[in-house]
Amino acid sequence: MAPLGEFDLIARYFTRPVRRAALGVGDDCALLDLAPGMTLAVSSDMLVEGRHFVSTVAPERLGHKALAVNLSDLAACGARPLAFTLALALPAADEAFLAPFARGLLALAERHDCELVGGDTTRGPLTIAITVFGELAPGTALLRSGARPGDDLYVSGLLGDARLALEVLRGRAAAPGEAFARIRRAMEEPEPRVALGRALVGIASSAIDVSDGLAGDLGHVLRRSGVGAVVEVDALPRSADLAAQAEALQRECLLAGGDDYELVFTAPVGRREAVAGAARAAATPVTRIGRIEPGQELRFVDAAGREVSGPATSFDHFRPDPPASAT
Amino acid sequence: MAPLGEFDLIARYFTRPVRRAALGVGDDCALLDLAPGMTLAVSSDMLVEGRHFVSTVAPERLGHKALAVNLSDLAACGARPLAFTLALALPAADEAFLAPFARGLLALAERHDCELVGGDTTRGPLTIAITVFGELAPGTALLRSGARPGDDLYVSGLLGDARLALEVLRGRAAAPGEAFARIRRAMEEPEPRVALGRALVGIASSAIDVSDGLAGDLGHVLRRSGVGAVVEVDALPRSADLAAQAEALQRECLLAGGDDYELVFTAPVGRREAVAGAARAAATPVTRIGRIEPGQELRFVDAAGREVSGPATSFDHFRPDPPASAT
Repeated sequence: MAPLGEFDLIARYFTRPVRRAALGVGDDCALLDLAPGMTLAVSSDMLVEGRHFVSTVAPERLGHKALAVNLSDLAACGARPLAFTLALALPAADEAFLAPFARGLLALAERHDCELVGGDTTRGPLTIAITVFGELAPGTALLRSGARPGDDLYVSGLLGDARLALEVLRGRAAAPGEAFARIRRAMEEPEPRVALGRALVGIASSAIDVSDGLAGDLGHVLRRSGVGAVVEVDALPRSADLAAQAEALQRECLLAGGDDYELVFTAPVGRREAVAGAARAAATPVTRIGRIEPGQELRFVDAAGREVSGPATSFDHFRPDPPASAT
Repeated sequence: MAPLGEFDLIARYFTRPVRRAALGVGDDCALLDLAPGMTLAVSSDMLVEGRHFVSTVAPERLGHKALAVNLSDLAACGARPLAFTLALALPAADEAFLAPFARGLLALAERHDCELVGGDTTRGPLTIAITVFGELAPGTALLRSGARPGDDLYVSGLLGDARLALEVLRGRAAAPGEAFARIRRAMEEPEPRVALGRALVGIASSAIDVSDGLAGDLGHVLRRSGVGAVVEVDALPRSADLAAQAEALQRECLLAGGDDYELVFTAPVGRREAVAGAARAAATPVTRIGRIEPGQELRFVDAAGREVSGPATSFDHFRPDPPASAT
């Protein structure tokens, strides 16, 4: 097949009819007319092959995930997705990659009414950088800084499946074929909790999405809010596939997993009914997993209230991977 | 030196006091409160080592250029810079790179009152993706589609020095030491024409910035506007360093150079005084280099009006570099 040029690529795979944008792909800038009295929420994420995804991932799932991790940041602020830009470095202009990548990316974008308004394609090691824009009413964003002692602590969905899939790929854990297909999907096609984030505006006191592991991301909330927390590890929601693993591996996946893209949030005890209503409205399961405390400590307890040790550290893209522990 | 973690990196080099943003670096999203009745202009560019810059470039200049190419897109729309996000992949968390990179980047941002509001850092092959936001009054953006037959054709500043520097690095041209320092600076530290773009709002009928070469970028304007153009190659503004080169190389650098980051724009003949006023107000030299014609052809003529041949093609990141021609 003849190699595609940059302009052909943009036109073929990424040009869509303009919707919300006053001007979309094809000029120097995209132009967005925003509603007066709205605040723009902006988030950027970059995915690098070998670091954020394995080379064996299906391109359609990779397209989905690249946008999903950004939408997850909007969800954590309670913002409504509006538009995004895509910067894409590719080793070659390969249609066998681009067609399914665009399909996965744009299908998720369509479901969230989030318009691709511009970007850049270039040759280079496979790297995907997306910047997403959302809007919300001024002063309503869910921030990391709003947790207060006494607040309940919640998490959406299930934790740990993405990390378990990674451990199976690394050969540190085993899962039967069907189970592996399920947990691999959790790793490769996370569902951003946009509807829940929006439903929690005015209810939650703080929120963050879990991308680097529950313990690490909750730590950001605690530091920003100047509070501590206690987490009941036996209450952490997990799949039957994860529950079938050894206890130590379960805890590692639940607390230091990463790539969960669930929302961890806090709300006053008096808002339990409202939280349940938001979860129903968003058709998203929510589990109460602990509470915010005075101080600055993050403690973990089991069902009997006994303290258990947490993970050593949060995931950091510039630190070497943690050494494999015996599980 | 101890390796820096991702969060340390963000804090040390890229956290700045929040100005325009309602919320800056450090939460899931940046929050921007926009003026009511304004349109948001958005542009993304990705720079990959070995493709967009040579590994010998000084990190401070690289930081400058990474933002400059994005501000140049805002300039070509006539937008006022507002804020930007940075996604950065680095082989290692190297302070000897990061400190000067951040310095060059943030110095240019400061001069244009353009706030860094978020981003992502990760390990990977050196790749820089920036998304920049600007604002302008609805309906006032300079678009590629507005050129009309009879309009004058202009370019800002000088063309071709960046390409000449590349040819010297490739060994296809020679330049004495001082000249090389000047043209290398043109390549590595382009000055985005933000003030000129803003001054041309309401005056220019179309505009684009020259990133892939005059002929190719002007071609985008012609296709979008459904018009042709004639360019007087002897009128193209060039430095004394470029004028000292062989005629064929001069034309190659002027017409197919790339990395110029000058504005090419059109305006009705009746607005010549207004264009001159805008150039003075922006303290930016502007040269009339031809005119828009009916049809769809891009023609090149010399000072005597004789047709000369243009470059074969525009730069395309997915096509191999053009074969070296005899100069």
